[in-house]
Amino acid sequence: MTQTIVESKTKTAVIGFDQPFCVIGERINPTGRKKLAAELEAGDFSTVEKDAVAQVLAGATVLDINAGVVYNSNPNPNETEPPLMKKIVELVQGLVDVPLCIDSSVPGALEAGLEVAEGRPLLNSVTGEEERLEEILPLVKKYNVPVVAISNDDTGISEDPDVRFAVAKKIVERAADFGIPAHDIVVDPLVMPVGAMATAGLQVFALVRRLREELGVNTTCGASNISFGLPNRHGINNAFLPMAMGAGMTSAIMNPVALPIGPKKIAEKRAEVEASGIILPADMDDEAFCQMFGLGSTKPKAGKEMEAIRAANFLTNNDPHGGDWIKFNKPPAAAGEEGRGRGGRAGGRRRRA
Amino acid sequence: MTQTIVESKTKTAVIGFDQPFCVIGERINPTGRKKLAAELEAGDFSTVEKDAVAQVLAGATVLDINAGVVYNSNPNPNETEPPLMKKIVELVQGLVDVPLCIDSSVPGALEAGLEVAEGRPLLNSVTGEEERLEEILPLVKKYNVPVVAISNDDTGISEDPDVRFAVAKKIVERAADFGIPAHDIVVDPLVMPVGAMATAGLQVFALVRRLREELGVNTTCGASNISFGLPNRHGINNAFLPMAMGAGMTSAIMNPVALPIGPKKIAEKRAEVEASGIILPADMDDEAFCQMFGLGSTKPKAGKEMEAIRAANFLTNNDPHGGDWIKFNKPPAAAGEEGRGRGGRAGGRRRRA
Repeated sequence: MTQTIVESKTKTAVIGFDQPFCVIGERINPTGRKKLAAELEAGDFSTVEKDAVAQVLAGATVLDINAGVVYNSNPNPNETEPPLMKKIVELVQGLVDVPLCIDSSVPGALEAGLEVAEGRPLLNSVTGEEERLEEILPLVKKYNVPVVAISNDDTGISEDPDVRFAVAKKIVERAADFGIPAHDIVVDPLVMPVGAMATAGLQVFALVRRLREELGVNTTCGASNISFGLPNRHGINNAFLPMAMGAGMTSAIMNPVALPIGPKKIAEKRAEVEASGIILPADMDDEAFCQMFGLGSTKPKAGKEMEAIRAANFLTNNDPHGGDWIKFNKPPAAAGEEGRGRGGRAGGRRRRA
Repeated sequence: MTQTIVESKTKTAVIGFDQPFCVIGERINPTGRKKLAAELEAGDFSTVEKDAVAQVLAGATVLDINAGVVYNSNPNPNETEPPLMKKIVELVQGLVDVPLCIDSSVPGALEAGLEVAEGRPLLNSVTGEEERLEEILPLVKKYNVPVVAISNDDTGISEDPDVRFAVAKKIVERAADFGIPAHDIVVDPLVMPVGAMATAGLQVFALVRRLREELGVNTTCGASNISFGLPNRHGINNAFLPMAMGAGMTSAIMNPVALPIGPKKIAEKRAEVEASGIILPADMDDEAFCQMFGLGSTKPKAGKEMEAIRAANFLTNNDPHGGDWIKFNKPPAAAGEEGRGRGGRAGGRRRRA
């Protein structure tokens, strides 16, 4: 059975067909987060610290570390990313003991991360582009780490899944030339938005199956891409992840944390409550208010995607007898309710027991 | 492409690999519902009427009709079920115009339902039991209707999926002897509870794939059986349905309706609210209270399973470009939010667009 071993100083995460799904937390990434980039430029790492802890609490087994900033003071990432990557890796592994995924398009930043990461991090990523293969595979070999292989090449991202499979195969073969085994390649078959390409889901499911059966490799993806541009993105993601797992997907780079309720939503609800004639106690703080009125919590918690993944782990027999499922949900219903279920309403159809 | 055609007086439901998932509403079934059975014995059909309308509103495309009562006044179902089946079928098809699924273990009740059902109902069910085959297949042929075939036989329900496949194959072959085509057989491969059998999910996914590839038949199941006895059953069901659909399952017999908030839960929340020092307006009724405090609604609505099914329809390209998904969810986010997504946080990972 293919197993990709990723390690922190003391913890091991195994990516594999017979393992619970590996959730790689994507939050530590300033790309497209202007506020975070500005904080980092100013030497403020508080958001990184919060994101690290929240993701691990939500169930991430690996944390992706991306230091892709463009500083106002220095627009050259080749100069700014390597020291920032080093700083963030050291900070995060001082805070939480989970394996890391060193993520950059700047080779110098990848090497900086590899130098300071404890254990055996995952490298993110190599592609089928010639220049990238020649730059990254020697690093993978030198540091003896597994690597994410994204199935695009010098011609770009093909809409043809056969071409994406061929690119993945080429990367696996090229890695073999460097002495890197297939079980250290985690292929990202590239998830397209289903709103833009109607076959996006079917393509991924077929590709994952083929990558597993023909190349014997583990797979990952940027899971939320599937729902890009659509309403109720979580609804799509919550179905996509179990379906991908059913097809054989073994990990995803994703956000395991549900965004906490923000001040705007709280203010709106407070206005609605006031308009209805309800009188609140003077000392009711935002957290108590949110809990009482069913808004959820002002604190981060695991997203619904994590529930979908835990259920799919159970259904693929990677949580035998549901130990993890039961731990993360309320205890089984009391005998009375159980009995009612058996009768057929909640317990399914009669004649089947 | 295999297509099973089910019809009401004017509407057609097509079960097929290239069709949206067929949701067969299971609520009209007094088995294990003592209160409902007593109502029916007293000639009160109000629950049946409510269940029919609520299920269609929630998205059921076919309604299962089961009249499996044991009256206090007459314990013989061979006498009581046929007239009750007739009565309920006539009542329901006068209320809602969706195809019906005539469901009974009493052959006389099946024939009574077939006699009065308009269009082309689905018959539920035949098994691999010799007596049942000889009783039911002639009915299927006589009325030219499709039939649910449950993969158990005179030896019971096998835990071995190969045996269950063999039973399904036997039923399809026996049906062929009667001149009934495979596309009129909808096989139920039997879903075991994953809490009791760790391989239950994997078994169903493999069986559905095989039934589709080797026998070319549509499939159905009592979907909620998968989560029997477990905490947070909806969480399991919501992952199971998309995974089964990804494997090729084309319909399920299930409850599409989320149970409305009951008086007990409302009373508990009112007590909690009162204890917190909140003062409610005197005229706040239960529905307004539930909405305000995030309990949901006192009225039935579509369950989360329907969201999972709609998402999986989209992801299997059976809702091309998401017309149905978009209709049942809020309209796409405004331009500002969309732009934020594109930056990478909500829109997925960079370097991928």
